[in-house]
Amino acid sequence: MITVAQVLANDPLTSAFARIQAEIDSAFDAFLPVPPDGRARLVEAMRHAAIGGGKRVRPLLLAATAELFGVARTAAVNAGCAVEAIHCYSLIHDDLPCMDDDALRHGKPTVHKAFDEATAVLAGDSLHALAFDILTQPDTSTDPFVRAELVACLARASGHEGMAGGQMMDMMAEDAAYDLAQVTRLQQLKTGALLAASVEMGAILGRVPPEGRGPLRAYARDIGLAFQIADDLLDVEGDAGLAGKALRKDAGAGKATFVTLMGPDKARQQAEMLVEQAAAHLSGFGEEAALLQALARFIAERDR
Amino acid sequence: MITVAQVLANDPLTSAFARIQAEIDSAFDAFLPVPPDGRARLVEAMRHAAIGGGKRVRPLLLAATAELFGVARTAAVNAGCAVEAIHCYSLIHDDLPCMDDDALRHGKPTVHKAFDEATAVLAGDSLHALAFDILTQPDTSTDPFVRAELVACLARASGHEGMAGGQMMDMMAEDAAYDLAQVTRLQQLKTGALLAASVEMGAILGRVPPEGRGPLRAYARDIGLAFQIADDLLDVEGDAGLAGKALRKDAGAGKATFVTLMGPDKARQQAEMLVEQAAAHLSGFGEEAALLQALARFIAERDR
Repeated sequence: MITVAQVLANDPLTSAFARIQAEIDSAFDAFLPVPPDGRARLVEAMRHAAIGGGKRVRPLLLAATAELFGVARTAAVNAGCAVEAIHCYSLIHDDLPCMDDDALRHGKPTVHKAFDEATAVLAGDSLHALAFDILTQPDTSTDPFVRAELVACLARASGHEGMAGGQMMDMMAEDAAYDLAQVTRLQQLKTGALLAASVEMGAILGRVPPEGRGPLRAYARDIGLAFQIADDLLDVEGDAGLAGKALRKDAGAGKATFVTLMGPDKARQQAEMLVEQAAAHLSGFGEEAALLQALARFIAERDR
Repeated sequence: MITVAQVLANDPLTSAFARIQAEIDSAFDAFLPVPPDGRARLVEAMRHAAIGGGKRVRPLLLAATAELFGVARTAAVNAGCAVEAIHCYSLIHDDLPCMDDDALRHGKPTVHKAFDEATAVLAGDSLHALAFDILTQPDTSTDPFVRAELVACLARASGHEGMAGGQMMDMMAEDAAYDLAQVTRLQQLKTGALLAASVEMGAILGRVPPEGRGPLRAYARDIGLAFQIADDLLDVEGDAGLAGKALRKDAGAGKATFVTLMGPDKARQQAEMLVEQAAAHLSGFGEEAALLQALARFIAERDR
């Protein structure tokens, strides 16, 4: 969460986070009115997961990319809301007793704790469907080709060839004793795919043809890995109170991570290197890409 | 499942079922090659749920509707596969211990029994994403407007305003003591929305504009209710071995259903009436709609 002090500091990245957080909360609020029938509990559970809390890194990545190409803000916020709906559903399901069994998320009780397990499963499923519902609304793009391409990108990034596939590899990690190449592959799917989709969807909204997306894709790949290294460092060195969730889980489970395989110092150096590399990929955009540059640094330094 | 004897009987509906079952199995087989990495277990769980078993009522409804408008078979099978992926994911999640806690589905162990709960959650999520992935492939339609409209229709039908919303109402039913109007609304969402989407998606593929879909929508609404009445009758009077799943669950839970509210005889009459009404809506299509007519009758008589 952004504090008042940070907003007053008037740092561009801090302002950008504050703005997108307000926009995404407001968009979810509008997409999810509580119905006056037996579905009320479901929609309240969706709102509990989707509104308030969450840094909104993915929507900001999407919006900052879209900004490079002069995309209307409403379009970027809608598409960002769709990516965030996928991210939120994945957190609800990951927190379930049969998965990570977590009681706390963004400093609040997880959905199955605040409601119940069955409602949590359904709320995740409903946010999953909402993501694609949002992407096909004319507000997101008046061009059906763009809408269909956004859906294709997000569906591919979230399913068995993306996020869910990475989650499965992660579940196998305790027994599988992955090496660095396998951990890299796992993380490219588990967290990297959705971060990369956020950048890609910004480019899709900006009508950048696939062959023109190379530098943006390279940037996204690098920050995806930096993001996960920072997450691994946070798991080992972070403060659970500040993080708003349980930590020390990977080490406790004996899972191979970037930090266990490389050691914390080398992992931190690697994250630094990835941020510089990510920045270099964007050099062609000049000052226009300042926000994406700042975001790359933020992503790699979350553990401090 | 269709028996060899039924296929040999050469009844058009039986042949249509046998054909679509083979096509959907083959499409899922092609969409889901088992990857040579840690995701293998996930894809095997998806295949367990999606291939073999299941009458494929929704894909057949979609294909039979699409046929009225001369849609290419590949397009109809792809879209049918997407609807069936949503149906399969919903069954995996409904069968979970925190939901209906079922051990048997289509005569096979449910996914969380054959694999484990966490894999079942992820396999459901991955089939959910696969549905939208399939709909955005050019094989489904070369027209991006059609692809985007298919996604919009299916996403709306499966989320909190459709199937998942109905499932939530169903979970509240034990305590809520619904009346007939509320049970009707619940069922229109829980099972009706996806059946209606199947018909609608056939019309979308056929480029029927929304204002021309009235009779098809009326047909879909009627068979949706007939379907659920038949399901309620099956729950009370059916044979668990033939059904391939546990029965007598609603009555055991004290839930209001069409059968508990109307009694079995009146419920059966109502289903008959709905089938005749559904048939009447299609009269404008003449003999062309014979398969949809036969399907309506099949749907209402599943309990016998």
